[in-house]
Amino acid sequence: MNIILITPDDLPENSRRVRLSGRRFRHVRDVLRAEPGQMLAVGMLNGGTGSGRVIRIGSDAVEMDLALDSDPPAALPLLLVLALPRPKALRRVLRSVASLGAKRIVLVNAARVEKSYWQTPFLEEARIREQLLLGLEQAGDTVLPEVLLRRRFRPFVEDELPRMAAESALLAAHPGGDLSCPRGVSGPVTLAVGPEGGFVPFELNMLRERGFSAVSLGDRVLGVETAVTALISRLF
Amino acid sequence: MNIILITPDDLPENSRRVRLSGRRFRHVRDVLRAEPGQMLAVGMLNGGTGSGRVIRIGSDAVEMDLALDSDPPAALPLLLVLALPRPKALRRVLRSVASLGAKRIVLVNAARVEKSYWQTPFLEEARIREQLLLGLEQAGDTVLPEVLLRRRFRPFVEDELPRMAAESALLAAHPGGDLSCPRGVSGPVTLAVGPEGGFVPFELNMLRERGFSAVSLGDRVLGVETAVTALISRLF
Repeated sequence: MNIILITPDDLPENSRRVRLSGRRFRHVRDVLRAEPGQMLAVGMLNGGTGSGRVIRIGSDAVEMDLALDSDPPAALPLLLVLALPRPKALRRVLRSVASLGAKRIVLVNAARVEKSYWQTPFLEEARIREQLLLGLEQAGDTVLPEVLLRRRFRPFVEDELPRMAAESALLAAHPGGDLSCPRGVSGPVTLAVGPEGGFVPFELNMLRERGFSAVSLGDRVLGVETAVTALISRLF
Repeated sequence: MNIILITPDDLPENSRRVRLSGRRFRHVRDVLRAEPGQMLAVGMLNGGTGSGRVIRIGSDAVEMDLALDSDPPAALPLLLVLALPRPKALRRVLRSVASLGAKRIVLVNAARVEKSYWQTPFLEEARIREQLLLGLEQAGDTVLPEVLLRRRFRPFVEDELPRMAAESALLAAHPGGDLSCPRGVSGPVTLAVGPEGGFVPFELNMLRERGFSAVSLGDRVLGVETAVTALISRLF
């Protein structure tokens, strides 16, 4: 946790003094071992970043005075369309893409996504949010990504994706893709990433017909967590 | 498992027929659901890649005839010097850097590495090898990375690192580093990555005195797994 995230609910109106209990309190006490007077890195969810001066540490809560005068790190101009990974990988992927600054994520079905993956409790809104918050806390960011679930590939790609992806470079990551994944792009990108085993030809064609280029990172087949991070890092 | 790794021990001398039991057999039967005659992607540990034609699937073993006539994917010209991560992250980092093609890895102590991390059973040679093999199997690679453990930072950096890192670009990843991490380099790189919390100034100075530049990926503080993948992907 490199930033303590405060939500508007934590803060009484017209006040700069916040009182935190639970996980954040324990982090302040046990990991940061903060003492009164100490300044801690804080951020307001979907708002600014800055510092919290520790006023008092009790047995179950910490009180801080906030000064939020900085902006969070820049967001990536990325729409990530990701075939739903297996549940264990899903949680880590959400954390890492949130830490990298992705703000728009669509988890989509694909032919090689096992149907059972859609049953995981990790897809519940609160569980997704939990992983996203961990990613933001890691990266010192405050802006919660938006995650959409789309259980049908074709209607999503036909009806929604064109509008969502408008004005962006359209890339579909595919082992053995036509092009090497571009480096250090400046504009917005829509990046589609298939399941382990890749998109099936029907899916890849559907993306190609809508203007996507199939790009690859080389000969190696990477696990989804490594691949998504590697792709994002190379693109931006 | 995108390639089935065979070791020389699996193969009788002067024979192309291999008999696999255990984990690899179960993968062939239960995941690949292979049938006699089918061709599977195989590789010889530290050797070539190619195909294995399934001859027979029994109740506890599969027999295949091997034809290994291709080269594994190119290795990265990278020496990765990594402050020992916490045990859970260690395993995943080993897998992902092996899948990315790193072949020389030094796990080193640093001031902010918790002493207890050196006690983990995951540092046993067989456990390290297990994770590296998983990474190779993921990536379709055969060449086992070399992993060195160095429990003292200073003697390693003073006495061993200069020789190991000779003729390479010297980069130390550091949040807020002087330079943005370079993209798409062509020559060999030695990349030092600190612990969560970074190198302490003494360590960073010691690296700088030996020619390392402190490079960063931007404002965001990334977890070690995400950071290492992002750095490697950006460099190569």
